[in-house]
Amino acid sequence: MKNVNAAILIIGNEILSGRTQDKNIAFISNWLNAKCGISVKEVRIIPDVEKIIIKNIRILSKIYNYVFTTGGIGPTHDDITAQSIAKAFKIKYGYHKEAYKILENYYGRSNFNDGRKKMAKMPINAKLILNPSSAAPGFIIKNVFSLPGVPSILNSMIDNCKKYLTKGSKVYSNTVNLFTVESNISKELGLIQKKYKKFVEIGSYPFFRLGKIGVSVVSRSTSKTKLSRVSKDLIKAVKFKNIKILKI
Amino acid sequence: MKNVNAAILIIGNEILSGRTQDKNIAFISNWLNAKCGISVKEVRIIPDVEKIIIKNIRILSKIYNYVFTTGGIGPTHDDITAQSIAKAFKIKYGYHKEAYKILENYYGRSNFNDGRKKMAKMPINAKLILNPSSAAPGFIIKNVFSLPGVPSILNSMIDNCKKYLTKGSKVYSNTVNLFTVESNISKELGLIQKKYKKFVEIGSYPFFRLGKIGVSVVSRSTSKTKLSRVSKDLIKAVKFKNIKILKI
Repeated sequence: MKNVNAAILIIGNEILSGRTQDKNIAFISNWLNAKCGISVKEVRIIPDVEKIIIKNIRILSKIYNYVFTTGGIGPTHDDITAQSIAKAFKIKYGYHKEAYKILENYYGRSNFNDGRKKMAKMPINAKLILNPSSAAPGFIIKNVFSLPGVPSILNSMIDNCKKYLTKGSKVYSNTVNLFTVESNISKELGLIQKKYKKFVEIGSYPFFRLGKIGVSVVSRSTSKTKLSRVSKDLIKAVKFKNIKILKI
Repeated sequence: MKNVNAAILIIGNEILSGRTQDKNIAFISNWLNAKCGISVKEVRIIPDVEKIIIKNIRILSKIYNYVFTTGGIGPTHDDITAQSIAKAFKIKYGYHKEAYKILENYYGRSNFNDGRKKMAKMPINAKLILNPSSAAPGFIIKNVFSLPGVPSILNSMIDNCKKYLTKGSKVYSNTVNLFTVESNISKELGLIQKKYKKFVEIGSYPFFRLGKIGVSVVSRSTSKTKLSRVSKDLIKAVKFKNIKILKI
């Protein structure tokens, strides 16, 4: 079993202010686990401020195997992620030859204005993350992967990160939905969690469905065998208490 | 003008893993700005791990005027926010008399089991945030406000935080939607941002609407006068370039 972890750094005033509802965190986290066996251990959302970006890049890139940033790599004045990451690692910021070619080719020489050229500026020795939607590439420098903030574009690019990532053990999850309230099964869940402490992580989350209150018990583990044992123990415990299980 | 700021600390494996899409960040941030003139400056999402919760509570409560936590105050084994915050501030963790009474009254003495009693455990001298949906209160200790993770319950409680918060200057925002691409107006936006550097924060965000690509230019400021000046400058600049404005 190999643990590989990551942090996500969301860069953007529009997410912090609540104007825009983030959709990238859940997407990246699910993708990393499903495709690469990498678990996201921390997320931070920060404003478009150079000093703050530099500080967070330095901290997170030291603690975690990988850091994924979103936002701030477009053509406008508030897009300062690339220059900030270059500064964080003391790498020269300037036109990236390959990125410049890609963008010049995409827009055509006569339409390749300064705003568009800006998207070719990054740490000059970065590896590129190709962008099949709108050409402007993301980039990789050390263990930091920089992606755009627009979800549809990010989604189209993320598979291009895969070849640069060391794979870890996938975390499987199993959900049992119960028609009860958390406080009615908290004792049983606590005992089961204790029994499988080292191998399975059990969480319980209230839900409202079909006009009824319920609890989703979610178990997560790198071992499918351990997961099915937890399920058996759980189903035995809830049957003993006459709690109904919601079949989906 | 008074700057009052806050951080949000989302505690929960289900958000980190991507299983659950967070809805609390945007809600809390919008509420804080609209109702209290408080700006959210940082968000962190962390797992249900005591050490990590303690560390983050200590750091964020020092840097920001207020910290809002969500999640981990329910009845199950993975709900460890209250005990972790008590440890972070070295305050005794135990039954809170008033919270105990509220919950005993709500469930009735005969149904007040251990899981339900757990929700009355918190830093013993905390102030309570009353919960009109499901009784179990949130709590305030020093500058940290702890709320539940279920959005509907959190939403019903948040107004009860207001009386404990020092108000700041509300940040107003103004959006102009343009039928163009960012790279076509990046130069103009940069110049306008420079002109109003100290007073207005201008961001640009691509959108897709009515089958067309566009850019929302969002200006944010505590001064309505400055905001309307930015709008005038912007509209003048885009008219000069023959860019259409989307009226909503």
